[in-house]
Amino acid sequence: MTASGLLDRIADVGRDRARGGYSRHAFDSAEAELREWFTAEAGWLGLDVETDRNGNIWAWWGTPGPDATVTGSHLDSVPGGGAFDGPLGVVSALDAVGILQRKGFTPGKPFAVVVFAEEEGGRFGVPCLGSRLLTGSIDPDQARALRDPDGTTLADAASRAGYDPSRFGPDREALSRIGRFLELHVEQGRGLIDLDSPVAVGSTVIAHGRWRFSFQGQGNHAGATLLSDRRDPMLPAAATVGAVRRIAAGVPDARATVGRLVPTPGGTNVIASTVDLWLDARVPGSGLTEALVEDIAGAAREAAAAEGCTVTVTKESYSDTVAFDGGLRDRLSGVLGGVPELPTGAGHDAAILAPHVPSGMLYVRNPTGISHSPEEFAEAADVDHGARALADVLEDLSR
Amino acid sequence: MTASGLLDRIADVGRDRARGGYSRHAFDSAEAELREWFTAEAGWLGLDVETDRNGNIWAWWGTPGPDATVTGSHLDSVPGGGAFDGPLGVVSALDAVGILQRKGFTPGKPFAVVVFAEEEGGRFGVPCLGSRLLTGSIDPDQARALRDPDGTTLADAASRAGYDPSRFGPDREALSRIGRFLELHVEQGRGLIDLDSPVAVGSTVIAHGRWRFSFQGQGNHAGATLLSDRRDPMLPAAATVGAVRRIAAGVPDARATVGRLVPTPGGTNVIASTVDLWLDARVPGSGLTEALVEDIAGAAREAAAAEGCTVTVTKESYSDTVAFDGGLRDRLSGVLGGVPELPTGAGHDAAILAPHVPSGMLYVRNPTGISHSPEEFAEAADVDHGARALADVLEDLSR
Repeated sequence: MTASGLLDRIADVGRDRARGGYSRHAFDSAEAELREWFTAEAGWLGLDVETDRNGNIWAWWGTPGPDATVTGSHLDSVPGGGAFDGPLGVVSALDAVGILQRKGFTPGKPFAVVVFAEEEGGRFGVPCLGSRLLTGSIDPDQARALRDPDGTTLADAASRAGYDPSRFGPDREALSRIGRFLELHVEQGRGLIDLDSPVAVGSTVIAHGRWRFSFQGQGNHAGATLLSDRRDPMLPAAATVGAVRRIAAGVPDARATVGRLVPTPGGTNVIASTVDLWLDARVPGSGLTEALVEDIAGAAREAAAAEGCTVTVTKESYSDTVAFDGGLRDRLSGVLGGVPELPTGAGHDAAILAPHVPSGMLYVRNPTGISHSPEEFAEAADVDHGARALADVLEDLSR
Repeated sequence: MTASGLLDRIADVGRDRARGGYSRHAFDSAEAELREWFTAEAGWLGLDVETDRNGNIWAWWGTPGPDATVTGSHLDSVPGGGAFDGPLGVVSALDAVGILQRKGFTPGKPFAVVVFAEEEGGRFGVPCLGSRLLTGSIDPDQARALRDPDGTTLADAASRAGYDPSRFGPDREALSRIGRFLELHVEQGRGLIDLDSPVAVGSTVIAHGRWRFSFQGQGNHAGATLLSDRRDPMLPAAATVGAVRRIAAGVPDARATVGRLVPTPGGTNVIASTVDLWLDARVPGSGLTEALVEDIAGAAREAAAAEGCTVTVTKESYSDTVAFDGGLRDRLSGVLGGVPELPTGAGHDAAILAPHVPSGMLYVRNPTGISHSPEEFAEAADVDHGARALADVLEDLSR
């Protein structure tokens, strides 16, 4: 089954009728269905499937062991996301295994396809949660206490879904088996359109993080409260959205976004008592993201004070700039005949693993450049080209 | 049972643990429990309870009939609202009936306590839905098609709760029986603090309405999309929040609020594709509210265009300024010995009924002035004073 054919098989799972696209989040029914589907597909290829203590799935071709060549991505999505971000890397890995099996190749090293849990942070707010727990880059107590928008903790959601959250945490055994990790992903920009190439090798991931701004004011009646008597946290929250764009526009190549904003209680005829907004900020270079956020926080504090409100700013996650392994990049470029290299502003599990094991990425062309949206796309021909390229490099890496 | 004692009995129904306060909405379990509780309390007073075709509850003292004296309010709340807005008028009506019964009074005219359905519009967006349907001031087809935040229509929610939505609509029989309507309500401002009085008679309700602003842009990846490539609808939405305050501040006595704002898809690492915000606007005087909204809509269109976005503005409800019946106001003031009169910026079922039948209101002092918030309050002594005042005027009105 080709990668594009495998994608068709899951085209109906987790559709989001309200937002469009897909909503597939940790421990929800769509994600459980995708896990079952992956386990069945891996089984048909003769792979042995196991789930690690952090909910990541490993499908082993042959005997598990050290110095393994590992490839894969994730199956969860952002709210109302596209069909490719995550699943493309998983179906391409399965397709590549099939291609290698049909040509009679047998890996000379251990070999696994991996599905990382909750890469988008779409439910519990922290991206790359499965790989962060595995590598110890998030404290398991902090992870267990994360809450979804309904107030359910990660620990409770995991328990209800049949996982044991007390086992969450660094997994040296799983990590020590990875000899090298390669993730194929749909491109999330227009780089490959401009370069007129179906695939590229990843070079760097820009530093990125998420900060929560919580504005506190005084809830009250929208009709009976004079403007002069108000302390409405929506005002400084809105001013901060403007400041994010204005301040980021002055920093070269910075990206800063408010995509999530929640007034409480959120009634039409109610002045909010609290407004929470989340800032996603990414600036190439060391320390510059945090400097940008400090400037934005200053503007937020000023706007809050002007309305008699207060604001607290909390860092929810941060990842420094990552350069993928030079040796692996050279080897990928060699096998693929000098395809272009591309930096990205998007975070990935490969970037979480990079400080621990040689890691790399392959990108597949996206003809719209749009991602994290129902319009995210890749042509079937490019998808299958990507899977064949992945098979070629995996063959070279696991001889 | 005193009004304050009756309020204690429902203190645990519909608490909102996430927002604080209460969330009691049309057809949810808390509202159903309050309806059952009201039916039982009315039964103990010997009242005969019936539910009309629009879900409003009528508890008759004696035989139903024309020229009835009717009093009551509502039991639903805004999201995360207080304990008094709505229930205070219902418990005070029950208390007043008990007071009159204990002194051996028998009404010389038909007499009913009414509970209007979905006064806040907290679930389906249109306030005073029960009284609007009853009086024909909303088209029943439009009402049936209203959707809650989860996308459920009013018709479906009503059916599931055991109502027949095909019967929703103008109810001439119910309306023609009302001879006069009196609603007691907690004050939603600081008027009675300043006047040092526990109760006041209502004079006017300021014109008010709700408009939905829907900003359309292009959803995309928050990390991979350069600022210059964005069409982010959060930017014009935030600019519009600022414009609402700035423009309203230039209009005497105007109140304009954005308390509800929903980005779609609403992911932290996703540029929104759509942002909806709701404007609650109220200006004393005829036509001034709509003029204010037109100015705000102009600013919204300008901000949307500057970001390559579009905006559509939809009026969801509008009620013109209402002056309560002069004869009834004089009579209330006469019985209560010249208590003060107060205008209000808050809408009420009494204002919906006012064009159809002589209607009036009594307000009870709120020592914080805060409403639509868990901090909304009235002292028990003021609550019971209000119920006794209500009993006095009801005795006079139903001889």
